[in-house]
This record gives sequence, C-alpha cells and structure tokens, in this order.
Amino acid sequence: MTTITAVTVSDVRFPTSASADGSDAMNKDADYSAAYVELSTDDPDLSGYGFTFTIGRGNDLCVEAARQRALPLIGRDVDEVVGDLGGVYRELQSDSQMRWLGPEKGVVHLALAAVMNAVWDMAARRAGTPLWRLLAEMTPEQLVDVADMRYLSDALTREEAIALLEEMVPTREQRIAQLEASGYPCYTTSAGWLGYSDDKLRRLCQEAVDAGYKHIKLKVGGDLDDDIRRCSIAREVIGWDAALMIDANQVWDVPEAIEWVQRLAEFKPLWIEEPTSPDDVLGHAAVRAAVAPIGVATGEHGMNRVLFKQMFQAEAIDFCQLDSARLASINEILAVYLMAKKFDVPVCPHAGGVGLCELVQHLSVFDYVAVSGTLENRVTEFVDHLHEHFVDPCIVEDGAYRLPSQPGYSAQMYAASIEEFRYPDGAFWRASGVAGSRGPVLEGQR
Amino acid sequence: MTTITAVTVSDVRFPTSASADGSDAMNKDADYSAAYVELSTDDPDLSGYGFTFTIGRGNDLCVEAARQRALPLIGRDVDEVVGDLGGVYRELQSDSQMRWLGPEKGVVHLALAAVMNAVWDMAARRAGTPLWRLLAEMTPEQLVDVADMRYLSDALTREEAIALLEEMVPTREQRIAQLEASGYPCYTTSAGWLGYSDDKLRRLCQEAVDAGYKHIKLKVGGDLDDDIRRCSIAREVIGWDAALMIDANQVWDVPEAIEWVQRLAEFKPLWIEEPTSPDDVLGHAAVRAAVAPIGVATGEHGMNRVLFKQMFQAEAIDFCQLDSARLASINEILAVYLMAKKFDVPVCPHAGGVGLCELVQHLSVFDYVAVSGTLENRVTEFVDHLHEHFVDPCIVEDGAYRLPSQPGYSAQMYAASIEEFRYPDGAFWRASGVAGSRGPVLEGQR
Repeated sequence: MTTITAVTVSDVRFPTSASADGSDAMNKDADYSAAYVELSTDDPDLSGYGFTFTIGRGNDLCVEAARQRALPLIGRDVDEVVGDLGGVYRELQSDSQMRWLGPEKGVVHLALAAVMNAVWDMAARRAGTPLWRLLAEMTPEQLVDVADMRYLSDALTREEAIALLEEMVPTREQRIAQLEASGYPCYTTSAGWLGYSDDKLRRLCQEAVDAGYKHIKLKVGGDLDDDIRRCSIAREVIGWDAALMIDANQVWDVPEAIEWVQRLAEFKPLWIEEPTSPDDVLGHAAVRAAVAPIGVATGEHGMNRVLFKQMFQAEAIDFCQLDSARLASINEILAVYLMAKKFDVPVCPHAGGVGLCELVQHLSVFDYVAVSGTLENRVTEFVDHLHEHFVDPCIVEDGAYRLPSQPGYSAQMYAASIEEFRYPDGAFWRASGVAGSRGPVLEGQR
Repeated sequence: MTTITAVTVSDVRFPTSASADGSDAMNKDADYSAAYVELSTDDPDLSGYGFTFTIGRGNDLCVEAARQRALPLIGRDVDEVVGDLGGVYRELQSDSQMRWLGPEKGVVHLALAAVMNAVWDMAARRAGTPLWRLLAEMTPEQLVDVADMRYLSDALTREEAIALLEEMVPTREQRIAQLEASGYPCYTTSAGWLGYSDDKLRRLCQEAVDAGYKHIKLKVGGDLDDDIRRCSIAREVIGWDAALMIDANQVWDVPEAIEWVQRLAEFKPLWIEEPTSPDDVLGHAAVRAAVAPIGVATGEHGMNRVLFKQMFQAEAIDFCQLDSARLASINEILAVYLMAKKFDVPVCPHAGGVGLCELVQHLSVFDYVAVSGTLENRVTEFVDHLHEHFVDPCIVEDGAYRLPSQPGYSAQMYAASIEEFRYPDGAFWRASGVAGSRGPVLEGQR
C-alpha cells in the first residue's frame, strides 16, 4: 500500500510586472503566481503536483486555504484516492464551514482547484499515462460519475451526458491519431499586452505570423484611440485572413461595451473577450445580441459550473474560456465541457499565467477526443511565458500544441524554480529588494 | 488631526454547533464566527469596528485577508477617510492583484466587507450618530457618490438613482418619527433550526407567538416527511394569520426545488428561501414561475451587486435578502437598495449569525426612511443568539427592532468576549479540548 504522507503548499511568485508582461486594462501590474501543491507519498517516486494561478498579493491566502483543504488526504491510501476521484472531490468540496466562504467561488474554490489538480496529476502518474489519455480511456459512465453535476439537472441530466459521450466512443482512437500527427490548434496572446509599445506590438505580430499562428489576440479597453491604432497595426501585419481577437478584461459597463466594440467592428474581430463583469450572464447576452457577428467570449473568471450553465442557457457567449485553475479541477471542468457540448458552444480554454498552458493542453485534447469531436471554431490560448520552470513543459509547433506524452498533468515545477521564486523568502525576492513594496506587510506601513 | 494608527483583526469563533443552533440542510455544524476588525486611532476614544461573518473553518483566511486589505488605511487622517467614503472604498476594492482572487466574491470580498464595515462604523462614531441616521442625513447626490454603481448602468443610471432618492427627501423625518414610535418589523428564525426536536420546535413557535412575532421561519430540505410534519406543527401553533417562511439553504437542483416546494404548498408559505444555488439567477426565475404564489427569496449568499442586478432584471426573486457582511459594506449595499427600489422588490435583510442583527437594523431603518418609504412586505430577520457579546446590542420588542441610538454601526464586541472566544488561543477554546477537532491543523492528522 502507498500512502499520502504530507501536503506542501508553496507561494511562488514571478516578477512579471517589471516587464509589463500580462498587462491589460484591468490588471496593470500582474506578478504571475502560483499556490503550488505537492502531495507526497511514502513512495519517493510518486507525488501529485497541482496549483492555482493568481497575480500576486493574496497568493498566500490560496496557499493556506489549499493546505487546509488538502489535510483530509493525509494518511489515505493512494489507490483508494485515485480509485474514487468523484468521492474524494465531493468530500473535500462539501466541508460546510469552508463552503460558507464561497460558496464554490473565490479563494476556497481556487484552493480546491489546486488540491484536486494535484490529485488528478497523481492519478495519471499512478496510471503511468498523461492525464488526457487517462480521461480518454474512461467510460462515459465513469466520466459522468466523477463530474460535478450538482445544480445542473435543469440543463443537462446524467442520462443526456452519458449519451453525448457514448456517441464519440467508437471514433476516439481516430481522433487521437489525428492529433498525434497535427497537434491541437492554438493562438497567441504574447503579442498584444496593453503595456507594450507600438513597435513591440508590430514586431511580435510579425513573429507570431512567422511562427504559424492564424489567430492573434490584443488587449483593449484602456483608450479608444489607442485601441483603433493598435488594431490597425495588427491588421496591417497579420492581414485579413488571420483572426484577430480583442480582450477588454472586464473594464466596461454593458452599454459602454456595446458602444466601444461597435467602434472596433471595422477590424472584424472574431471575438470580444470579457467585455464586462464576468458574473453578468444577462449583460453578456445583451452585448452578444448587440455586437453580432462579433462573438462574445468569457470564462477565465467564470467562478463555477453554475455560472457557465447560465451562460449557455441564456445564449450569452459564443466561446467558453474555462480556466483550469479556477474551476475545481477535472471534476467541475468535465461538467462544463458536457454542457458546452449540449449547447453547442466551443470551448477555447484560457491559458497563459503560470502553467495554465501546461494544463489546458490536456483538456483540449480530451475534449476533441471524447466530447466535442470537432476542431471547428476551437483554438486554445498559448502564451510563451514561464514554461522553463516546468519539468514537462508544453510544446507548441506551427501554431499547435503537441500532445503531452509524460505521465501526469504536466503540472510539476522544478524544485530550483520554487526555491528561487518562493515568496517572500526565495533567492529572487530576497535579492531584489522589491519584496517589501509588493508584499502586504510593508505596503501599509507608510 | 486624528490618525488611523493600527488595524487589529481577531478570529472569534463561538461553539454553536454543540447545540445545533444554526443547523440547516446544508450547514449541519456551524460554529458562528467573525473576522473582527478594529481600526485604532491616536485618539483613545475613537476606533472603528466591523466584521464579516463565517461559520468556522476558514475564518482565519478572512482574518488575514482583512488585515491585508486594511493596511493602506494605516497612517491616514481619519477625517479625510470618513470625508471620502466612496474614494476609500474604490481604492481598497481596486487592488487588482487581490481582485483576481474573486473578483468581488469569496474571501477577499468578505474581507473588504469587514474592513469597510469598520470604516463606516468609524464615520458614524466620528459624527456622533448612529449609522442609520448618518445615512439618512446624506443628500441623494452624496449617497449615489458613495454607492458602487460599476457594472450597473444597464439597470440603473446615476440620474435615475438620484431621482429615486429625491422623491423621498421631503418625508424622511416623518418616517423617522414613525419608526421611533413603533420600531422596524422583524421575524424570527430561532424556532426552526433543523436539528431541533419536534417538542422544542413546538415550544419555540409558541414562545415566538407570545413574543409578538407575526412571521416564523423553518428550515426545510433534509427529508420531505419531516418537513411536512414540522410545517404542520408550526401551523398548529401559529395559526393561519401569521406568516410561515421556509428555507432550504441551497440543497436542491431546480427541478427538485419545484417538486419539493409544491409538496409543501398546502402550508401556504410566504416564501421559499435559497431553493438552489445562490448563483443561479435563471434557476431562481424558473422556480419562481413554477411555485407562485409562493414567493422566492434569496441573498444571504448573494456574492455582489452584479448578482442582485440580474436577480432583479430576470424577475427571479420576490424578496431580496442581502447580507451586511457579504456585500462590501454600505457602498455596495446602497447600490442594491437603489436597484431594489427601481425594480420594486422588497429588501428583507439576512441576519442572525454573529452581529448581523446589530448591522441590519441600521440598513432597514435607512431603507424605510430614505429609499423604499414603505413597510409593505418588509420584515427583517432576527435570531436571538450571541447579542450578549455586543456593546450596543439590538433591542427587539413586540416583533420589531427598536431604533439604535448609540453612535456607530453597533458592531463593537466586548473585549472580554473576544478574549474568551478568540480561536484557537482564547480561554474557551483552550479549556474545551475540542479546538483540535474543529481546527484545520489537527483535523488532517488522523
């Protein structure tokens, strides 16, 4: 018997704000961070790794919440845990005292994501297979059993979900072979951060085209004239056959979103992403009705499956951008994929940040193989940041993710990276002399 | 000049689970708790007190989040802070790194509520007046300036909000005089916790009737036969002229909610409270359409003003039960009251817990005086727990809250109570020997 012996959660923060990487109209100084979970066992060759993603301050709250949520796993038999991934999820999720702090949203939900991501990583490692394949080899009943279907039965019943999955079973292997040959298509956001100069934008757009990308995304919403100029530059470089997406990161009220997007319509964006509050289902539906044929996309701040259910029911979005570290891991993500299938909305997962690309490649591959069965209107985000810290980094070639081949969820970071960027005592933060100005303690002591 | 010199946040937990006080179908073992903020100044006679409410584990997360969110206040001139309550709110709220952890929901939002509650308490103390009167003496423009109207303009514009408030200005004093004579009507939940025996239920219903209550609320949703029996007992005791409300605390999916409530329709409940996920606007609208004339009520877990906006737009609820420690204090609560007025939905605030009754009495009085101008269909929750720990406890007589008269937001707890129930080092928890079984640290070490 192999036993889970300890949980270690690390506060890892990268100083991305120094270079304006990740800058947008809402988030001008993001320090990409992870509350990073390691579940250790008494087998030195088996651990589970997972994380949630934040942008700096407050990452410590997720670290402590993840530690508390993971404690019930200590002392458990690994095979019992990975043999009952639905039951373990429901047990951790249903702590009623912790639930009060959401419910199912915010810090305690991000923490559950981090812990369950580590459990799923451990399950795939234990099986000696990449997570996408572990999922792709589960039966429809097994998948629906681990999915969190609570509060969804008015939109999708268990029987409907199983039937949707059954349809795709006979052709799963064909699609695996296809993706092994060509990869899963992705787009890049690396070009378009709001804090970049026009010259840098032009150069990065050209580099993206040269690298084979057919989709480019720009941040907008700071200043309308700037947005018009930046969209013009992008179209000059990428032409009109490639897709241009724009992302406002929630800065607008609904009427303002409609007006602003209409002013950018001449650039024919494929989608407007996060036009307003991520909680505003009816607002997104109103924007969508007003700006068509421009699509509406949202989801990186989509707090839980109940929000996505309503986005589908209200026909509020054209693209579902679920987040692998905000939804409570595979259990909840599965439910969203199943609803997306029923409501015929393509899922184009949010990525970037720290390690999100490493996770979402597994999701997109699984989706194509076992759920959607189509690549139409599907393209997964890719941002070329911070992959060097991961033991099994994603590989993108010709605008497509290559299929992960190592066992697990590709979530493990190098120990040396954690040592260097652990906040506030890692070598980088001690040496930088800026820890004080970014951290919570000294900040208020002016 | 008076300066804010320190923030102290205490983790205060009461062992209410031992008596099944607060037990419902979702929350079987609530230990009512507060993340309790004191903003100290260099004037020993002036502090600001505020809190958010939780039910035990994870209260430490809110404590640390509140500490971090309050730090920018240290060193500030008290009069500048209380003279710009909108600006201070927006500054604290807009920390983009902390915002990522919600946004505007969960632990970081609960923490903002705790801090801004303390700021508003300080403002009223500085003015030497109870908070309800401070608010009732502000002009419509001043009120709308401090309200958080972001993301709401598709439902309510600034100009509409001012006009709604203007209407009520000439008659404010009349309504104050009326409430000073008769109090603000309330109902009691103390009788109906799910963990109470039938005998205790019967006795407490009788006591409630004897005390002048015209509304009684029961918890339901555990077992249908039990619910039928308990509703029968309640109706036997209170008769059919008094109102009976039922509360399911989110345990049902939408179809199940509809079916279960229809089975209890014979008891003519005034409302079904929290029939399903608190995030499910469209689900509440579906339940409401199906169970009319039984009303639908929700809000104690309503995460922010954007959720309430949609509840109003979708005609999803008959009663708005906003929570004074979950919404980000007066700034956000004002916005919800203004929308409720426009959409003609009565606000019946959630209370109980620790100190929520002390807060909501101010809100209800202000609402009647300056916003709604009516008591029709309005009744505010009252639960007779834990008031003895407050310096200025609410006073309920003949089923009505008496008007608070002391300066502030009635949020201050006795120092001795904090010392005794501070977790885990207060005298109660050290002596009880149960700290280990309730706390996060030992819990996982089985």
